[in-house]
Amino acid sequence: MKPYKHKAQYYETDQMGIIHHSNYIRWMESARIDAMNQMGNDYRKMEESGIVSPVLDIRCEYKSMVHFDETVAVLVQIKQYNGIKLQLSYTITDNVTGELRAQGESSHCFLNKRNRPVSLKRTCPDFHDAFEKWAEKID
Amino acid sequence: MKPYKHKAQYYETDQMGIIHHSNYIRWMESARIDAMNQMGNDYRKMEESGIVSPVLDIRCEYKSMVHFDETVAVLVQIKQYNGIKLQLSYTITDNVTGELRAQGESSHCFLNKRNRPVSLKRTCPDFHDAFEKWAEKID
Amino acid sequence: MKPYKHKAQYYETDQMGIIHHSNYIRWMESARIDAMNQMGNDYRKMEESGIVSPVLDIRCEYKSMVHFDETVAVLVQIKQYNGIKLQLSYTITDNVTGELRAQGESSHCFLNKRNRPVSLKRTCPDFHDAFEKWAEKID
Amino acid sequence: MKPYKHKAQYYETDQMGIIHHSNYIRWMESARIDAMNQMGNDYRKMEESGIVSPVLDIRCEYKSMVHFDETVAVLVQIKQYNGIKLQLSYTITDNVTGELRAQGESSHCFLNKRNRPVSLKRTCPDFHDAFEKWAEKID
Repeated sequence: MKPYKHKAQYYETDQMGIIHHSNYIRWMESARIDAMNQMGNDYRKMEESGIVSPVLDIRCEYKSMVHFDETVAVLVQIKQYNGIKLQLSYTITDNVTGELRAQGESSHCFLNKRNRPVSLKRTCPDFHDAFEKWAEKID
Repeated sequence: MKPYKHKAQYYETDQMGIIHHSNYIRWMESARIDAMNQMGNDYRKMEESGIVSPVLDIRCEYKSMVHFDETVAVLVQIKQYNGIKLQLSYTITDNVTGELRAQGESSHCFLNKRNRPVSLKRTCPDFHDAFEKWAEKID
Repeated sequence: MKPYKHKAQYYETDQMGIIHHSNYIRWMESARIDAMNQMGNDYRKMEESGIVSPVLDIRCEYKSMVHFDETVAVLVQIKQYNGIKLQLSYTITDNVTGELRAQGESSHCFLNKRNRPVSLKRTCPDFHDAFEKWAEKID
Repeated sequence: MKPYKHKAQYYETDQMGIIHHSNYIRWMESARIDAMNQMGNDYRKMEESGIVSPVLDIRCEYKSMVHFDETVAVLVQIKQYNGIKLQLSYTITDNVTGELRAQGESSHCFLNKRNRPVSLKRTCPDFHDAFEKWAEKID
């Protein structure tokens, strides 16, 4: 799994002269979708097949500041996956120095078009298998 | 038509120490929806009835800077409406001093669920009449 | 302490048809600054006096979805304050039904212009006293 | 000058199921800064040397919709540069099909640390020369 790279944009800065903390939450989403694409679970296709994966909770610890024009690398790992719930962890580092910028976590469930929770294992075995394989890689 | 009020938020600032210019475009949308609500065309209901109103073009002239914690007033006026296309103008002023902050314009069409342009006059006479009344007020 | 009110904007929605989860983090900031203003600690003045209060960590549990045009109420409470670090909790509810939408937390330190942590108690006794009073109200 | 590439992110979508129009304004900024870097005028260095380049006006015509996960290419060209004011045009196309997505324009001046307009030609001849060279390429 290759980390997701993002160059911090001017519109992401705030008047403290650093990247506004809310953007890290967005980078975590971009990295999550990128990781799912890498492991073969195209998130666009997942939504097109009628499954959405909303965020149940999110957490981010800010370790050092990111400035405009710096590139960060976001590594996404599966903490837990049981076919119904997915827990991910995120390590955000400076792409040049490797210095730790932030550590995050998020949890997700899977909903069908009527907003009912589904078991991926039963309804989408292909997506399920890809998550299982990814989860194994981490251990 | 009462102007839409917005307090500039910290997350809207950039490292220049002012509100990032892209947020004015968002305030114009908020003011547009607020004005439509005021004149009786609830935008949420319009979408629920199957009509969306995408932006065809947008323009904004930045006259003076807005800073964190300042409140702006956005006045929306109809420039032109013919049942198929809607043209709006926006005057953004400081809510306390009245100083001009920006002037904007936007154009919109109306699409049905299959993304086909519709004539509001024919498909949604109620929405059409409300736009007509609003347009008359301006002249 | 009055809760901060926010009407969910169209530009805050995503293609799931709900408010994107990253916006809750921004609403928490708006509510935090509003609460500080209410208790007499004007955040703009705090920054002008050379103190910034960056986010150390943030957490949000999403309980139910917020849709476009719904108004949320965000109640901010002090969990802990010791003159050096500030911990806040957030309760986000629907402003009409009172239904719980999300629960959040954030931690903050205080930095001077050279990005060094300061004790508010020593450097800014006025701000410190206001935080102390707010903290007492909660207990 | 290579066009700036951007993959449309999930957090940039809205409930119409397309990318929200305000994001194009942000992509124009990213592409502008990228183009300045390419021609040797590092925008970060420009700001560090005390010059900011605020947006005077902006315009965008939306030609066709951009969806989540599609990549756009943004080509930036100088329309006019006279040492005091800079006018740019933007052509946003789908990176795969080449289909036109949007056409934009922006104007900028140059301000020093006291927010006074400056002539780049006199105060920053290096930056000025790079802009001149870029302007010549277009003609």
